[in-house]
Amino acid sequence: MSAAIIGAGVIGAGWGARFALMGWDVSIYDPSNGARERFEAVYATACESLPALFEHTLPEPGKITWCDSVADTVANARWIQESAPEQLAIKYKVFAEIQAHCPEDAVLASSTSGFMPSELQKGALRPEQIIVAHPFNPVYLLPLAELVGDENTIARAKPIIEEIGMHPLHIKQEIEAHIADRFLEAVWREALWLVNDGIATTEEIDNAIRYGFGIRWAQMGLFETYRLAGGDEGMHHFIEQFGPTLEFPWTKLMDVPELTPELIKRIADQSDAQSGAYSIRDLERVRDANLVSMIRALKPRQYGAGALMNKIDERLVNSSASYHDDQLVTVHRTIPVDWMDYNGHMNESRYGQVFSDAADTVLRLCGADEAYVASGGSFFTVDCHIQYRNETLPGETVRCLTVIAPLDGKKLKLSHEMRRASDETVLSTAEQLLVHVDMSTRKSSLPPSHIASALTELREGQA
Amino acid sequence: MSAAIIGAGVIGAGWGARFALMGWDVSIYDPSNGARERFEAVYATACESLPALFEHTLPEPGKITWCDSVADTVANARWIQESAPEQLAIKYKVFAEIQAHCPEDAVLASSTSGFMPSELQKGALRPEQIIVAHPFNPVYLLPLAELVGDENTIARAKPIIEEIGMHPLHIKQEIEAHIADRFLEAVWREALWLVNDGIATTEEIDNAIRYGFGIRWAQMGLFETYRLAGGDEGMHHFIEQFGPTLEFPWTKLMDVPELTPELIKRIADQSDAQSGAYSIRDLERVRDANLVSMIRALKPRQYGAGALMNKIDERLVNSSASYHDDQLVTVHRTIPVDWMDYNGHMNESRYGQVFSDAADTVLRLCGADEAYVASGGSFFTVDCHIQYRNETLPGETVRCLTVIAPLDGKKLKLSHEMRRASDETVLSTAEQLLVHVDMSTRKSSLPPSHIASALTELREGQA
Repeated sequence: MSAAIIGAGVIGAGWGARFALMGWDVSIYDPSNGARERFEAVYATACESLPALFEHTLPEPGKITWCDSVADTVANARWIQESAPEQLAIKYKVFAEIQAHCPEDAVLASSTSGFMPSELQKGALRPEQIIVAHPFNPVYLLPLAELVGDENTIARAKPIIEEIGMHPLHIKQEIEAHIADRFLEAVWREALWLVNDGIATTEEIDNAIRYGFGIRWAQMGLFETYRLAGGDEGMHHFIEQFGPTLEFPWTKLMDVPELTPELIKRIADQSDAQSGAYSIRDLERVRDANLVSMIRALKPRQYGAGALMNKIDERLVNSSASYHDDQLVTVHRTIPVDWMDYNGHMNESRYGQVFSDAADTVLRLCGADEAYVASGGSFFTVDCHIQYRNETLPGETVRCLTVIAPLDGKKLKLSHEMRRASDETVLSTAEQLLVHVDMSTRKSSLPPSHIASALTELREGQA
Repeated sequence: MSAAIIGAGVIGAGWGARFALMGWDVSIYDPSNGARERFEAVYATACESLPALFEHTLPEPGKITWCDSVADTVANARWIQESAPEQLAIKYKVFAEIQAHCPEDAVLASSTSGFMPSELQKGALRPEQIIVAHPFNPVYLLPLAELVGDENTIARAKPIIEEIGMHPLHIKQEIEAHIADRFLEAVWREALWLVNDGIATTEEIDNAIRYGFGIRWAQMGLFETYRLAGGDEGMHHFIEQFGPTLEFPWTKLMDVPELTPELIKRIADQSDAQSGAYSIRDLERVRDANLVSMIRALKPRQYGAGALMNKIDERLVNSSASYHDDQLVTVHRTIPVDWMDYNGHMNESRYGQVFSDAADTVLRLCGADEAYVASGGSFFTVDCHIQYRNETLPGETVRCLTVIAPLDGKKLKLSHEMRRASDETVLSTAEQLLVHVDMSTRKSSLPPSHIASALTELREGQA
């Protein structure tokens, strides 16, 4: 599976990094000065954050190849992402060159935020091949792609977008700026007025957004949030109640303040006062760590972006046991940044989490999975002794190897060893004792024979 | 410290719950049918989520008193929150009654989203006493209050808003709908058009928001996000580049689609299809758990709402040792919902976190705090043995009691007991071994004498 990146600015590089980290081979064409260095910087940033969205290790990244021509770049591509400058004349030239050399059944997607497919397709060799796939920065973390264009091409595009961890939002009727950017533009215009009229500074506007509706929208969006405001009387009631305020002249929306040098300077100065203490690189790091931590925070309740990441996890989890040095591998993961403490290393409690996850793998492999818990049985940990041998740092990949002792009635004893995957250094060991529990009484009980025999089988697979 | 709540609908009840849980006595007046039951429901929800924002236990909640008259409600209030219906005639009547009986130096704040202070103050006994304090639902979790009005009154209001865990956003020039609701309205109008024109459903719009810019705005807001898009060339460059698109007719903003019965029905039907499988109560629970988890996710990097919660934590942390049953209390906290696993109880790794936090308390009390770590010394845990005695459930308050063994060279041994605070049931015990470390070499070393003697003193305080 191979993706071609035509134009590797912030957006194109973000696509390339996402495809590569999700296991696709990537070929890149960008003739501009310094393109390769800029891509490497984006890719390095993506390597630090994207894998940490998941509880399992991603497959090896795909191969990244730099090409000297569009023809070479697209020759074997299943997906071609065009992120050239937002000028139709440039895009027409690029599309012609791509379509002269690419497979006819490849998806040819444009990152454009402004142009509609009907505009992009004018004079094309195979118009229906060209669709819009509009992402959001940082492309390697934000899981939204707006898809607009021919139904058949989009039918081929959707599973690929899902495979690389994004939600394909199919917009069935083309419209200027698709959907999300229309909202961004509405807010941006209003924000420019507020700064222009001296009502609020850039920092005050950011605080109004992030302390209030921003964090609300991050998980539910607009309508589901308002559904709650309507309460038990429902959405119908809410709209009837809120309707009249729409007639108030609250927003200055349609016209735009003139972007005079004074206004531009005012915004730039306020932005410097607000964020100037940090470099763009610092801000990117903190943004990515924030996004990863917040998306991860939504995973347990299967909500929003967290639910999308859970789907990838389900794909990553091995349904069969795997072994390393003849021992059962129960965890193989990258340590996420939100597991760090003030000593700059993984907090001691997260070692416990790795061993808890390791026990879960053993239980899943022997049939004591979530469905079994729902059916009325489980194992609870009653004792755990952890020895901390070496520091573990965020971004490191670790492997947990587990030895299963013979089942002793209700008792299951596991011995874990957590190693740094790159050099096999032992980071920690643990002895863990679990007992089987009847979930209806929440008291200990003998496990059923199919679990006991699956454990024996698993034990016998190890050295 | 006493707050008066005049009108206890969703917003008024949210204010009341926040004030009470943050330790203020609250008196409430709401003559409408079922007001008390509705408040109790909001308060119960708030009790499940607000305390979980913090790493330390809040002081005892304040006393809640229901009053039969405005006069009784406001007589001793330092803060009076008016959340009556959005009709000026009603508000004028309420303000007159409040000002006839309240202390002259109380803050009299209105939750209004639509009216400006100059409108609210017309004909008032003490106009400058009336300000706007506009919150966001759920008031007990979202930390934003927009303050508009007289500078002196706002100077008194700000520290109170901060004390109850919110950010006072002082809007220095009054404007219809303040700031945040202007953005909400701009997006709402555009969303109504998109549904009206059949471009997108309510669910598609929510997905466009929450998978894309929503999660970006939840931490940085609008301008700081765009600062990043400008890259190293800065905000100036970004505006110049993005400016021209403002002249495209991308949004339909100024006019509003007529809210015909057909449009209202379409929205209500789409919302049912999207969220109808869940009751409002279910959605509230998941929303609150999402908000708590996402706000908590921002705490380690001191960002956005997480930074505001850290400030409260700093206030809650005891600077001196406290004892219970003659033992040192090292943790006293409510178990947050994001600590739960698929067995419906606190995950085993979170016991380790409680004991890690308990060790941090001992270290802080003996002077080995974050400043000490920055100066080059720390303690690392090398061994921990945990016994799990009983299940711990989210929402339970737990207390950790710690016994400090005499310092043995570089080695510090702690014995912890975690109890359910309500009935003293022992939930878990742990034996933990730490060693002192020189952070420049990250190797073990003898602790300095002031730390050793502080530990001895702490030890001698226990039974």
